[in-house]
Amino acid sequence: MAETGKNSVGLVKTDKMRVIEQDKPLELESGKKLGPIDVAYETYGKLNEAGDNAILICHALSGNAHVAGVNSPEDKKPGWWNVMVGPGKGIDTNKYFVICSNFLGGCSGTTGPRSVNPQTQKPYGLDFPIITIADMVKVQKLLADKLGIKNLLSVIGGSIGGMQVLQWAIAYPDFVKSAIAIATTTHLSAQSIAFDAVGRNAILADSNFAGGQYHTGKSPDMGLGIARMIGHITYLSEQGMRAKFGRELRSAESYSYDFNSEFAVETYLDYQGQSFVERFDANSYLYITKAADYFDLEKEYGSLEKAFAETKSRFLVISFASDWLFTPAQSKAMVDALAAANKPVSYCDIASPYGHDAFLLEPEILGSFLSGFLDATHRPGITRATKHKTQKAKYKMPSSRARVDYELIESLIKPNSTVLDIGCGNGELLANLTADKNVKGRGIEFQQELVLACVNRGLSIIQHDIELGLANYANKSFDYVILSQTLQTVKEPKKVFKELLRVGKKVIVSFPNFAHWQCRAQLLFLGKAPQTKQLHCKWHNSQNIHFLSIKDFDDFCAKLGVKVEEKIPLGKARLKPIRFAPNFFAEQVIYVTRKD
Amino acid sequence: MAETGKNSVGLVKTDKMRVIEQDKPLELESGKKLGPIDVAYETYGKLNEAGDNAILICHALSGNAHVAGVNSPEDKKPGWWNVMVGPGKGIDTNKYFVICSNFLGGCSGTTGPRSVNPQTQKPYGLDFPIITIADMVKVQKLLADKLGIKNLLSVIGGSIGGMQVLQWAIAYPDFVKSAIAIATTTHLSAQSIAFDAVGRNAILADSNFAGGQYHTGKSPDMGLGIARMIGHITYLSEQGMRAKFGRELRSAESYSYDFNSEFAVETYLDYQGQSFVERFDANSYLYITKAADYFDLEKEYGSLEKAFAETKSRFLVISFASDWLFTPAQSKAMVDALAAANKPVSYCDIASPYGHDAFLLEPEILGSFLSGFLDATHRPGITRATKHKTQKAKYKMPSSRARVDYELIESLIKPNSTVLDIGCGNGELLANLTADKNVKGRGIEFQQELVLACVNRGLSIIQHDIELGLANYANKSFDYVILSQTLQTVKEPKKVFKELLRVGKKVIVSFPNFAHWQCRAQLLFLGKAPQTKQLHCKWHNSQNIHFLSIKDFDDFCAKLGVKVEEKIPLGKARLKPIRFAPNFFAEQVIYVTRKD
Repeated sequence: MAETGKNSVGLVKTDKMRVIEQDKPLELESGKKLGPIDVAYETYGKLNEAGDNAILICHALSGNAHVAGVNSPEDKKPGWWNVMVGPGKGIDTNKYFVICSNFLGGCSGTTGPRSVNPQTQKPYGLDFPIITIADMVKVQKLLADKLGIKNLLSVIGGSIGGMQVLQWAIAYPDFVKSAIAIATTTHLSAQSIAFDAVGRNAILADSNFAGGQYHTGKSPDMGLGIARMIGHITYLSEQGMRAKFGRELRSAESYSYDFNSEFAVETYLDYQGQSFVERFDANSYLYITKAADYFDLEKEYGSLEKAFAETKSRFLVISFASDWLFTPAQSKAMVDALAAANKPVSYCDIASPYGHDAFLLEPEILGSFLSGFLDATHRPGITRATKHKTQKAKYKMPSSRARVDYELIESLIKPNSTVLDIGCGNGELLANLTADKNVKGRGIEFQQELVLACVNRGLSIIQHDIELGLANYANKSFDYVILSQTLQTVKEPKKVFKELLRVGKKVIVSFPNFAHWQCRAQLLFLGKAPQTKQLHCKWHNSQNIHFLSIKDFDDFCAKLGVKVEEKIPLGKARLKPIRFAPNFFAEQVIYVTRKD
Repeated sequence: MAETGKNSVGLVKTDKMRVIEQDKPLELESGKKLGPIDVAYETYGKLNEAGDNAILICHALSGNAHVAGVNSPEDKKPGWWNVMVGPGKGIDTNKYFVICSNFLGGCSGTTGPRSVNPQTQKPYGLDFPIITIADMVKVQKLLADKLGIKNLLSVIGGSIGGMQVLQWAIAYPDFVKSAIAIATTTHLSAQSIAFDAVGRNAILADSNFAGGQYHTGKSPDMGLGIARMIGHITYLSEQGMRAKFGRELRSAESYSYDFNSEFAVETYLDYQGQSFVERFDANSYLYITKAADYFDLEKEYGSLEKAFAETKSRFLVISFASDWLFTPAQSKAMVDALAAANKPVSYCDIASPYGHDAFLLEPEILGSFLSGFLDATHRPGITRATKHKTQKAKYKMPSSRARVDYELIESLIKPNSTVLDIGCGNGELLANLTADKNVKGRGIEFQQELVLACVNRGLSIIQHDIELGLANYANKSFDYVILSQTLQTVKEPKKVFKELLRVGKKVIVSFPNFAHWQCRAQLLFLGKAPQTKQLHCKWHNSQNIHFLSIKDFDDFCAKLGVKVEEKIPLGKARLKPIRFAPNFFAEQVIYVTRKD
């Protein structure tokens, strides 16, 4: 009964709504028509007076409308995302009005192949038309209209639910203020199609399948069970399976020397297969996996960039490092396309061992991202960093990256310009530039907790390793690119610098000056690797892996044909440039450079 | 007919040999008895007079005795490893006498579940006893004895064939001079067991399976086909599938909106499933995958180190970077155990996009490793590097690692000692130490072509990234550990150095001296990052990521409580130590250190 307590949405019921009448059928993407269409849905929380707090959750393959709470006091299991949705949770039902519906083609209340075909008065079976993700979303939009929703603060979903999220943002740009796509992809890989195909083969070849009209006889449980087992292997990661099962035997010390299931992982799969056939319809499995296989934004729009061209949502894209079904690389591709199309997008690849299932199993970190992003989307504007003292304290910059050059860099940037801040940390500089100079800023950062800090500030922040380049950005797509105190820490400074010069009209670079007099003196008189306030680590534990002076960088720019517009040698804590013998007296330096 | 040409073993025939009579049955690992046992086998090449050139090849799940050449002039497809076995190929039939037999439980001539059960005069079906990898190897040994083989120059196999290789080396240590284990594992992961279990489930649940007695009626083709499809997905890599199929449609531009196979990857799997059921027996599939699931050297011997304790073979272990079925990490674990048990072992993780199937699809690079290793095993001893001029020229050391300190380091090593050379390059130093001082040497190297060069020299060489530590080696397991011109290039010098001090009684370290007078002068007078003969790269393209002087290293050793036994400051090309003001005049330095 904990599920009706204060952290739960409590006792909820699944409602049903007819969104399409039989005499006015919906035209599907395939060209076929379908009607009537009923939709099963649940809602939690309250729509506020402004009507701006509605959130739609889209479920994945085996989900349904029942996201959170319990449907009856006797329910042993709460809704499928109860960990994430409820009062004070990642998707906070105290703040937001949450809707979820079973999608078209499902088997949990919404019209699907198990529904009665009005032509035959029997279940549709394989006479149900092939449906697509776009068809599912169309039906969800009809439901939203019927519920009197004028716009959605966010559409949120993982896996196939994430595909619906992307489709929503593309199909209804003015309706969707933000889109949160979790562990998803813009198209299935060949490998994922292959797994789906084997699962469908197992169902279609089951001798009980009876061409889909198995409702009066035995169900194709064997085929559906096999499909589900294959699915489950792909939802977990290899390391997750190893940790959970290893090579444990179910109940014995030694082998049984027969073909019964004896490894723990075998009995787990048996159980998953068995429990699934009790609650799911084999035909729905066919239709939903086919819809997933068909989803392909590149194919439909010519390119991902074109697919996202008309969207107006803020995007948050989340992947999980160990997800090998819908991989981080696939998420990264959609993020790159969104960034290239100049859309506001944030991205984080969350470290987790749970594979694809992590979107259900990582409520804490995922919840932080969701609540931070939703709050920032719901509140207006971005404020100066200094006003967020708690945040600053919580996400303190690592000392090696502490930047006395922030104020000076800010003074170099013209109002209303576009800025890309590489290694932006907790987003302090970007927030200030946004608040004070109305800059349109984007950040790139590698550390997960700093990415989260930026999301909380409402910034567009992409988790990325700058060593991999910026292939997604067009030439000269930013007025300024900032690389503060980072050049000396990258493996290939030349490659990185050239890439920044390509995408930025101006590149602002700062680094510690290795030819400062203290360095020279230490090497000369002590015969040791220099250690100063600015270069404060020992030779063996420094993050700095290249050492350069102002003169080195001058030579470097000359060789690369880079124009130095400004060169500002600085002491460690003073904003006043050093005029006399800068390569001797400056501890650090800021360059404004460009290459035409 | 190319297959009977000069690069082919030509027309070959599969022979059969009874190795166990019915009245003297073989006792299996399960305790059950089996007899008679017939073995199907092929041989190529000639056993030499010394009888020391016999090689046994062990096949994988779907293989058979027919490795190379053709069985009839009409054969369209040659044997399963024709690319590797033949005159002048990786396994050269001009030099070696090659044997391969279909394994116990198979369905290509050797006794298996399809054979006639003498008790019932019907095929065994599920009355066939469960067999293990050890049982398979026992039967192979009986065949070798019957063929008059006194010892094997090598046992070679990939995948399940590799398991047999490991079992051979453990069960018959005096019979096996070398063991080449390719893309294999000492135990299946939970994920691999899961895939096998789903495949067996599909077969067992097929309505045609009839408890295994399907020989008079329809075969369980659906189940076997599903199993094979799952298998094929695991044999390819995600990137391999993407390159081969992508999301290509078989024959249309647009979707068919039905459940027929339409993606190219679907029709590929259909074909693989279909062609497999025509040539393979479903019961054999059950028995072989079960044998693979049961194989677990850790479980059987308590630990891998114990499993390998009594082996006397030289080992070559090969994995493929994109193999996610039997992973590089699994190969690495067996290599670590062999190294820990002080066995001669070489290892390379070959860069390939072809996944598990790479062992069949990378004949060139894999063939180089095999031929080099076999030749070195067949010829006696290791000779000085200078005598292998062709090799030296072919595998030239990268200039950044060229070592003028080799001769001096060689002079510091006592005869008959044990040496671990970290970053050993093409093995020049190790070869010389072995030839001149009878040192028992091992090398660690990261670059594939340098690993191959060491294998060709007959050295024990493990591909490994030193940053990951040396956890497999016990404390003080070498008389000397050598780290030549590498300390300044590793990310965490302290961690690496401490690890070397743990495993070596003495650690010999050499590095360029950053406080050489030229460096001091350049920084002082030019205000630029030093660039000398020894530090010959620019600040931005140097592999050196830490800069240290003799004094820095003295301080470092003092802080770590490391005793410096010898310190030899050197000029770039002179072997005579620099006595006066070494931190000012030495370009490089060699330390002999230890920590008790």
